[in-house]
Amino acid sequence: SLHRIKASGLKLQLCTNETQATRENFVRKLRALGFDISVAEVTAPAPAACHLLKERGLRPHLLVHDDLVPEFAEIDKTNPNCVVLGDAAENFTYANLNEAFRLLIGMEKPVLISLGKGRYYKETDGLKLDVGAYMKALEYACDVQAEVVGKPAKRFFESALAELGVPPEQAIMIGDDIVSDVGGAQQCGMRALQVRTGKYRPSDENHPLVKPDAYVNNLAEAVDIILQQL
Amino acid sequence: SLHRIKASGLKLQLCTNETQATRENFVRKLRALGFDISVAEVTAPAPAACHLLKERGLRPHLLVHDDLVPEFAEIDKTNPNCVVLGDAAENFTYANLNEAFRLLIGMEKPVLISLGKGRYYKETDGLKLDVGAYMKALEYACDVQAEVVGKPAKRFFESALAELGVPPEQAIMIGDDIVSDVGGAQQCGMRALQVRTGKYRPSDENHPLVKPDAYVNNLAEAVDIILQQL
Repeated sequence: SLHRIKASGLKLQLCTNETQATRENFVRKLRALGFDISVAEVTAPAPAACHLLKERGLRPHLLVHDDLVPEFAEIDKTNPNCVVLGDAAENFTYANLNEAFRLLIGMEKPVLISLGKGRYYKETDGLKLDVGAYMKALEYACDVQAEVVGKPAKRFFESALAELGVPPEQAIMIGDDIVSDVGGAQQCGMRALQVRTGKYRPSDENHPLVKPDAYVNNLAEAVDIILQQL
Repeated sequence: SLHRIKASGLKLQLCTNETQATRENFVRKLRALGFDISVAEVTAPAPAACHLLKERGLRPHLLVHDDLVPEFAEIDKTNPNCVVLGDAAENFTYANLNEAFRLLIGMEKPVLISLGKGRYYKETDGLKLDVGAYMKALEYACDVQAEVVGKPAKRFFESALAELGVPPEQAIMIGDDIVSDVGGAQQCGMRALQVRTGKYRPSDENHPLVKPDAYVNNLAEAVDIILQQL
């Protein structure tokens, strides 16, 4: 399906909330699976966070997965004035959480940047708490509201559109998550299709707030429909 | 001050949110410091939780401090149908939090009982996240609301009154925490004094919701005033 989109001359940008790997490693895995994707075609929370950090002169303390740290290589991390929280997995230790908390509570105006707000996800060895749960813990303890980078943040979709160089009304989001993918893209002025695969649940079709522009059975069908309209 | 209260013939009950030790150990520490207190004079979240578990036929999975486990000795913990969360400190590991989460999310109607909702506390080596932060993480991940046992829960003060055998209007709470101590006791129909020591902050005197019946500089002054009124 990706191949057919590219062959048609349409531009493509992959929007992921992956924060357990750099884009380089993420793309390497996809290419190993046979997907023709380059790093420039991936929009991910960590680079979006780096953009925000530079723009606002913020120096982060990182509570993220070890494999994500290289994304922040060019960012000044001395004398931190904010905390960046990702899906740190095994790095979510009692000591690391207390350290991030102490830094935040010691700031005059605590700044917590979260690379997502997912509740949980599934791995081969079972369900795991996602970054959103730890974000809530720190938000409560410090009485702050985190700034969420990543889907469904409007800013995240805007940066994907900037990469594509197209206005929202000329872009279509295809995703399986009713809130993060469909809702986020629509709030940004894009149309959005929900695929009935992956995270999709039949109950999504009665979602109180978000209604996709259309449902498709899978990515191949989405591409069929889009190419027919050209 | 405790001595003067007891010598006057008044009854006394110590209401603590301590969940890092059994009442036995808590009392041992206090006695070592010279306080004349018995286990029966202490109301604490863990025994309150045990009462609730028995009443509702709940079998807990415990995510608590090792030193608190003996409080649950008589409780059936096989095939858990709820999670009891305390200030687990070093037991707040990534693995333990995922385990508690998986149990909750696997229940038809998840039951999360939290032995408090404190945000953080101070120890000699610095500030630590308290049970409330981890409660928020699990609440968010499972989309449930925890049942809080311990101050400021109305039920907690009611069980302290039951121990004393007096109605709320004949009891006075003395505490340093504007919400947990003063607010909780007042919601239960008791009068409450705030001492200007410990957790007290001058900003408490402008609290939007809670107003103590009186302020006192310390416990000794509180006892003076109470004994004068007898």
